[in-house]
Amino acid sequence: MDVAKAVVARPAGSVDRLAELATADMAGVDALIVDRMQSPVSIIPALADHIIDAGGKRLRPLLAVVAARLAGSRSDAGLKLAAAVEFIHTATLLHDDVVDGSGLRRGKVAAHLIWGAPSSVLVGDFLFARAFELMVETGSMRAMEILARAARVIAEGEVLQLSRAHDVNLSQETYLQIISAKTAELFAAAAESGAVAAGASPAKSAALRSYGLNLGFAFQLSDDALDYGGLTETLGKNAGDDFREGKATLPLLVAIARTGAAEREFWERVIGRQEQVDDDFHRARDLIVGVGALDATLDMAAGYADSAKDALSIFPESELRDGLEALADFAVNRRA
Amino acid sequence: MDVAKAVVARPAGSVDRLAELATADMAGVDALIVDRMQSPVSIIPALADHIIDAGGKRLRPLLAVVAARLAGSRSDAGLKLAAAVEFIHTATLLHDDVVDGSGLRRGKVAAHLIWGAPSSVLVGDFLFARAFELMVETGSMRAMEILARAARVIAEGEVLQLSRAHDVNLSQETYLQIISAKTAELFAAAAESGAVAAGASPAKSAALRSYGLNLGFAFQLSDDALDYGGLTETLGKNAGDDFREGKATLPLLVAIARTGAAEREFWERVIGRQEQVDDDFHRARDLIVGVGALDATLDMAAGYADSAKDALSIFPESELRDGLEALADFAVNRRA
Repeated sequence: MDVAKAVVARPAGSVDRLAELATADMAGVDALIVDRMQSPVSIIPALADHIIDAGGKRLRPLLAVVAARLAGSRSDAGLKLAAAVEFIHTATLLHDDVVDGSGLRRGKVAAHLIWGAPSSVLVGDFLFARAFELMVETGSMRAMEILARAARVIAEGEVLQLSRAHDVNLSQETYLQIISAKTAELFAAAAESGAVAAGASPAKSAALRSYGLNLGFAFQLSDDALDYGGLTETLGKNAGDDFREGKATLPLLVAIARTGAAEREFWERVIGRQEQVDDDFHRARDLIVGVGALDATLDMAAGYADSAKDALSIFPESELRDGLEALADFAVNRRA
Repeated sequence: MDVAKAVVARPAGSVDRLAELATADMAGVDALIVDRMQSPVSIIPALADHIIDAGGKRLRPLLAVVAARLAGSRSDAGLKLAAAVEFIHTATLLHDDVVDGSGLRRGKVAAHLIWGAPSSVLVGDFLFARAFELMVETGSMRAMEILARAARVIAEGEVLQLSRAHDVNLSQETYLQIISAKTAELFAAAAESGAVAAGASPAKSAALRSYGLNLGFAFQLSDDALDYGGLTETLGKNAGDDFREGKATLPLLVAIARTGAAEREFWERVIGRQEQVDDDFHRARDLIVGVGALDATLDMAAGYADSAKDALSIFPESELRDGLEALADFAVNRRA
């Protein structure tokens, strides 16, 4: 396994550098999120707080506020947009967990297991609508257009993924189409809408969209790799979730292609028919690592991260640009 | 039973008169609906077509286009808004059927029983996002604000209803609050946003909002009555759905109040604990009719219909205004 070699060759990256530069903006976004998740119907803030407090990295709103600042914003217009982006993301997480029947989300028990699937569906709808109310407040019809389109593309990606779940014959091309829609699109829309709301030129808005789109691919692919242990020697606590749900992600698809006829029956049993026994995950992981499918996935993620960094070249050197570059590296090389 | 007397006293009303006046507009709305439900992900148009083709009366988009015309619109701006309203409505129907586990919708097998609950949730999300894309095309930020707010209020109403399901102690006041949010709000928003998009004065927009809100109450209350047979001697084919799902609607709440301690244990068993046997629905219906709870519900619906008609008084006499008045009467006196 030459994973260690590959690690040395790549900068580790950081999300903290960018987060520090945006500390004040993100405090404002957090305040907006807490304020706008309120409702006289008490289940709504309780359930929303459970998933939002579960503390994702708030990457998408971070991208929106940083894009606005990089585009020269001196106002707080980006904050409402950023909160809207996080609400759209949270709504999709709530619905995804119902769709997938997931047991955990961000290390906590999934909301639908506490409040029931119906509440998760409806609170997702609430957050989605709230997102549009926040966007109206920004007054930017173009930002609204970008995010409405993103929300629609995400739904299309989710349905496409659902219709091809457990499909060991899924092509890598179709898989990339799925993650473009269900993950990369919202990163792209967050960055682009932040720029647009700040009055950026079409070229700068397009550059930030491209950065976000490529960053989204890098994040999703390294996420897929982390589910099989990624670069770590020991498995993270949620490792194996994709496998147990029978999701055909890139490491698996590469391994299916490379192991060929010899393992065909294994893949069809554990993914196609989802008949899994105790040791299957470890066998799958050994096959995936053995044929270099994890490396291939992370190499592809690194390629997207490079494209993300390249897209920033039209901006002059700045701390914000450095921070975005470090985030792209982090997307590939994170350990969790 | 003096139902027959009450019927004679009220004008029958009509939805056809208004539908005829808006034939050309509604053909345009239908074309938009078909066009915008398309997606390269084939499950989406298949599922959307199933529920949309299932042929609701398209009352909400009808309200939007008529409000726009009454407010003097000479353009087709109201059509996109009307299609957006129908998409929001359809999205909530898809999610409701999942939430309630309903078996039938508009006389056909519910979509989630054919394509699965996950697809229904995600196609609902798709239609919701498409609605906002359509609204962006209208260019009216104010119309967007009205409909985003409505979508949020609907979700709040649904969660409130869910949290009070099977509650035989639900107050009539809280019940009216629930139907205001989950039903009347979208009728109000459809009429108001249609008017606003057409450039109506604040007074005219507010009048049309008031008409829509009151019409929505009238519709929902007569819907509740129809579930127990309404004014008909024979039960409609979907009668008893609310009862079997243990939903506390107004006829039931009135009957619970009027039958008092004598039937307390019956209501707690069939609604509170949902332990129903074959004859329970007919016993419930006999109690509801016997204590005049159906009449009370329809009287309340008629009161809302009168308020709806009153709200139109600021508009000069016209065929459109007559049609809206006839629709308000129809809302109360329909047989299905």
